[in-house]
Amino acid sequence: MSNANPYALLFEPVQIGPVTARNRFYQVPHCTGLGHVRPRADAAVRGMKAEGGWAVVSNQETEIHPTSDLSPYAEGRLWDGRDVPALRLMTDAVHAHGALAAIQLVHNGNHAQNLLTRAPVLAPSEMSVDTTHPKQAQAMDKADIREFRRWHREAALRAKDAGFDIIYVYAGHNMTLAQHFMLPHMNQRSDEYGGSLENRVRLTRELLEDTHEAVGDSCAVALRFAIDEMVGADGMQASEEGRAVVELLADLPDLWDVNVADWSNDSATTRFQPEDGYQNAFLSHVKQITRKPVVGVGRLTSPDMMLSMVKKGIVDLIGAARPSIADPFIPKKIEDGRIDEIRECIGCNICVSSDNLGIPIRCTQNPTMGEEWRRGWHPEIIAPKKSNADTLVIGGGPAGLECATQLARRGYQVTLAEASAELGGRVAKESKLPGLAAWSRVVDYRLNDLKQRGNVQLFTDSRLDVDQVAELGVEHVFVATGSHWRTDGISRSTQRHMPQIEQTAKVLTPDDIMNGLLPPDGPVMIYDDDHIYLAGVIAEKLATAGYQVVFVTPESLVSTYAVNTLEQPRIQARLIELGIDIRCNQVLTAVEGDIARIGCAFTGRVTDIPCASTILVTERHRETALYDSLRGIGLKTLELIGDAASPGLIVDAVFAGHRAARDFERPKAEADKDWFRREIIDLEET
Amino acid sequence: MSNANPYALLFEPVQIGPVTARNRFYQVPHCTGLGHVRPRADAAVRGMKAEGGWAVVSNQETEIHPTSDLSPYAEGRLWDGRDVPALRLMTDAVHAHGALAAIQLVHNGNHAQNLLTRAPVLAPSEMSVDTTHPKQAQAMDKADIREFRRWHREAALRAKDAGFDIIYVYAGHNMTLAQHFMLPHMNQRSDEYGGSLENRVRLTRELLEDTHEAVGDSCAVALRFAIDEMVGADGMQASEEGRAVVELLADLPDLWDVNVADWSNDSATTRFQPEDGYQNAFLSHVKQITRKPVVGVGRLTSPDMMLSMVKKGIVDLIGAARPSIADPFIPKKIEDGRIDEIRECIGCNICVSSDNLGIPIRCTQNPTMGEEWRRGWHPEIIAPKKSNADTLVIGGGPAGLECATQLARRGYQVTLAEASAELGGRVAKESKLPGLAAWSRVVDYRLNDLKQRGNVQLFTDSRLDVDQVAELGVEHVFVATGSHWRTDGISRSTQRHMPQIEQTAKVLTPDDIMNGLLPPDGPVMIYDDDHIYLAGVIAEKLATAGYQVVFVTPESLVSTYAVNTLEQPRIQARLIELGIDIRCNQVLTAVEGDIARIGCAFTGRVTDIPCASTILVTERHRETALYDSLRGIGLKTLELIGDAASPGLIVDAVFAGHRAARDFERPKAEADKDWFRREIIDLEET
Repeated sequence: MSNANPYALLFEPVQIGPVTARNRFYQVPHCTGLGHVRPRADAAVRGMKAEGGWAVVSNQETEIHPTSDLSPYAEGRLWDGRDVPALRLMTDAVHAHGALAAIQLVHNGNHAQNLLTRAPVLAPSEMSVDTTHPKQAQAMDKADIREFRRWHREAALRAKDAGFDIIYVYAGHNMTLAQHFMLPHMNQRSDEYGGSLENRVRLTRELLEDTHEAVGDSCAVALRFAIDEMVGADGMQASEEGRAVVELLADLPDLWDVNVADWSNDSATTRFQPEDGYQNAFLSHVKQITRKPVVGVGRLTSPDMMLSMVKKGIVDLIGAARPSIADPFIPKKIEDGRIDEIRECIGCNICVSSDNLGIPIRCTQNPTMGEEWRRGWHPEIIAPKKSNADTLVIGGGPAGLECATQLARRGYQVTLAEASAELGGRVAKESKLPGLAAWSRVVDYRLNDLKQRGNVQLFTDSRLDVDQVAELGVEHVFVATGSHWRTDGISRSTQRHMPQIEQTAKVLTPDDIMNGLLPPDGPVMIYDDDHIYLAGVIAEKLATAGYQVVFVTPESLVSTYAVNTLEQPRIQARLIELGIDIRCNQVLTAVEGDIARIGCAFTGRVTDIPCASTILVTERHRETALYDSLRGIGLKTLELIGDAASPGLIVDAVFAGHRAARDFERPKAEADKDWFRREIIDLEET
Repeated sequence: MSNANPYALLFEPVQIGPVTARNRFYQVPHCTGLGHVRPRADAAVRGMKAEGGWAVVSNQETEIHPTSDLSPYAEGRLWDGRDVPALRLMTDAVHAHGALAAIQLVHNGNHAQNLLTRAPVLAPSEMSVDTTHPKQAQAMDKADIREFRRWHREAALRAKDAGFDIIYVYAGHNMTLAQHFMLPHMNQRSDEYGGSLENRVRLTRELLEDTHEAVGDSCAVALRFAIDEMVGADGMQASEEGRAVVELLADLPDLWDVNVADWSNDSATTRFQPEDGYQNAFLSHVKQITRKPVVGVGRLTSPDMMLSMVKKGIVDLIGAARPSIADPFIPKKIEDGRIDEIRECIGCNICVSSDNLGIPIRCTQNPTMGEEWRRGWHPEIIAPKKSNADTLVIGGGPAGLECATQLARRGYQVTLAEASAELGGRVAKESKLPGLAAWSRVVDYRLNDLKQRGNVQLFTDSRLDVDQVAELGVEHVFVATGSHWRTDGISRSTQRHMPQIEQTAKVLTPDDIMNGLLPPDGPVMIYDDDHIYLAGVIAEKLATAGYQVVFVTPESLVSTYAVNTLEQPRIQARLIELGIDIRCNQVLTAVEGDIARIGCAFTGRVTDIPCASTILVTERHRETALYDSLRGIGLKTLELIGDAASPGLIVDAVFAGHRAARDFERPKAEADKDWFRREIIDLEET
């Protein structure tokens, strides 16, 4: 790398115990929904990060014993030697690109429910498991603690055998036994593991010492530590006991990986935490206490922010989970001076939702994430064109933009025609709603790429009809015309009983609101049968604008699907604080004049809600008129993609656009096989 | 079998298309939470049913294509030839015991979310997926229907190749494409697949014809059909279109497997459907229409009921899912005249919850269910004793009863001492609460067994202390002393902030209510941080007794965990109908005099609830005083089991008692290995 690179500081090597990171880019442990359930796919994800230039690539929390069984979730597993080969796939993939491989050993204490193994659940003191599962954990006695230490030590030895260079002790996210022992509300012990902070930290100290003793000759020992629980004086605070823990352990770990708890605070979304580097305030004093290197996170995508954090002595290593998912090649791009090519994380937590759903990781920005093994996709490499065919993409939303971008990268001539004045489609509109500004990065990244290519023509204000398409003479057409929200109230909750909506009733949809319409004066009822963010942000927008809002949903929570993105409690709290009248478990049955009628989801009992207008966030109609008419004109390729094919999330639209571009001019039989790729159980293993 | 057997009729062979069932016992398809995720365990479950005498053993719904991808759930999978070997494990296991193997092919339509494959979701018409996942299905065009038929046909051929004898077309549980096409609220098509019933049934007819044509030479073709949606005139009714479907298809299937939809109606719990054979009214006219054999279900455990159903011409084959889980050996026991040895299903739906949680199947009554492969457990066979050791079991609840039963079966001398006047512990008490009467079968089955054995002594009213145990001279002691409900309000929701409960406040627990105490006159507040059935049934009991009840829970639903047992909507509906004031998302903060103070789970905002008493359904304290004192007296075996070790569900206590008996006098190193047994991914398969 040229010394002229202004970010040269980020590419200095860093010594971590007995190993050396080649630069300061450090992919901290993060879940993938792959783990032991899909180990080959997991290895491919991690290998891609190494190829992208990260000096350290970590896996995800890795169960060390059947008493820490997170089934049915797809985390790492290293119960015994049989799990070593799967993990070695990862270390081989990481080492092949010159990076260090780290493993985050975990005992989850009462965060594990042991639903597969039926083993006892362990905790510092007696308490329930930390879900609604009707089960209580056992308070560990001294023998249990000795056993746990032995399991951890043996797992560290297996991890070394699997080729890992950095072995974690994990005391974070309110999900691990080591941290549970530190927290007074979970540790009411009266022995030397309870009471004083020194006692509560004893277990973590012992784990660090045990791990050093077992594998410290060749492996670094890292500590992942949640320095602040983000509940003020009700929990651990960075300025109080958090700092004291760092003082107590100081130089014992070879590396401090410091963040905040719980997971929803560590992985805060841009909707609730718009600022990159938002954890800096919690990190800043750690380096003053320890002489060992420190890694920290905070949705870091800006090289200038990274540089400043190192220069200011906040961290030695730039940690990333979500930014490395959105762009595994951030380090390489900074190294090459290709800053504007960074595909920035939008902080939507679709990646997090994948893990919570127990499915392979997805990313709104990076459609190749989780598809490296299954489909052989690479985020930076795509097969070159197979012909000199011209292509036309109709619609400039997320599906159309991604399709056009990838076709252009393949070398095809691409014309993109957008009917409206602005490129971006639903993303351009949604990102103007409260809290979603960062989502415009989905558009920005692709437009930046498209605008620099000579083989691309972009048109706005260009609504095409079938004759115009025929006139263009392009024989390969991708239709990404999107969808619009229904006005008839039909949705999953009302499918069997269509709501009776009077012609004269004032009914609006999210499209109206995003197009700038405001409801008439008076109370507005928002009916949410979509269940993720949109109804909630519209409610927030209107309440902030002074409307009296009644929020009705057939689910028992506001934005219930946002449980998966870790945002749900914040959304409901915000709506309550805004004075919104929330009616859960209610199904829309009618809108008559200035009354919306709703029925209890359990009993059918009817309630009338006075309202001047109703906003229906229900289902969407696909915009297929143009596609339908194009079917008759003999195009060689005609493919409907994105919301126009199947209304879903933005991540689905980007994936659809990407896949269409990848599969263009690919033999159908070969492309079809990709849908079937999966990992299956070994029937012989004993 | 002797002709004198009054149930000889149940053991007549039944011709099903080209195959013959050896008797009338038919295990209909049911989920196991094993499937393609744990195929060896699944095969072992099915093989056990065959060994137990079932003439037909079915697997579970089996995905035929990546557009019907139920990930992360553990159902069957037969996308292509790579899935055949796993399924052949099952057919081999079933055939080894002379039974027929059936496979339930499925395309789940919009019940599948395709979260792994990301394939389009298919449906007769445009609509959302049937969860809260923000995704819409595509209306299938004619080409899609042709493709679907091809997939189904090819899956049938693969199923035949895997050794199945009966191949299902599945139109039930509101979960399958074939049924979706039949239902007007899901099918708004205007082509020959929509409109008239004949058109809506066309797809099912074609699937039956295709399957016959493909594999009918050697395999029977069964139709699983939901004849009634149980929503009255709002949906399909057995007396209307349900009957008409049977008339339309009449003799086309080789077998009619008839039940009701949705799953919560088909697998109704005893709490809401106490009567065995509760589906008979929906079955009775099917046999009058078709000449083909009919199988029906209804939680059938009584041989007299079974006999009567065959005699009356309601069914030809006795179908069972849950009863075959609780006792895989029902047929053998009836054949041998061992009727009183039948381990009857209690209708608690813990088995169903396993599938909904994506974990291996568990059963309250049968602790060996799902453990056949993992632990090598057999429901009827247990290793004989290894010595002439005497054993003492202290506590006659579910853990103690099961432990004593299995120790006795092994041949050990067993003394069981129960402190109270009644055996059964928590089960004896809970089964007296509204709707839970059938749960007493957990006690009845075990007591019946114990009372017939010469090596067992049962004592009630026998609270032992350490001296008495020492005096007995028994050196192997199992302590199953149970737990009691906390009175201090500490629970998962209040762990960080202990509620302030005034000394003078009238606070009760479930133990008080089950011991016959009634709250003082006036409003009663029930705080549920347990989340399954108990708080709800206590609320029901008190409201029925005339109390004004306020039900407070930190969760967003009443009995939220009962979503997994399919009971939640019924519970909440019942509580609403009883006039109970439900306050969700509220955390207990204080009880002061006649005020209970609760705080919003999202904002902390406080509400005061006037109440004369408070019932705390929070966590439990383990009863360990005797165990603790026994640790000092040098017993050779001292094991704490059940709720006394780890408060949980009844199923957990039974499992713990069973495991302790199995592992008694077994080398620890060998026993410990069982916790680690699991199925892992093939790293070589391509």
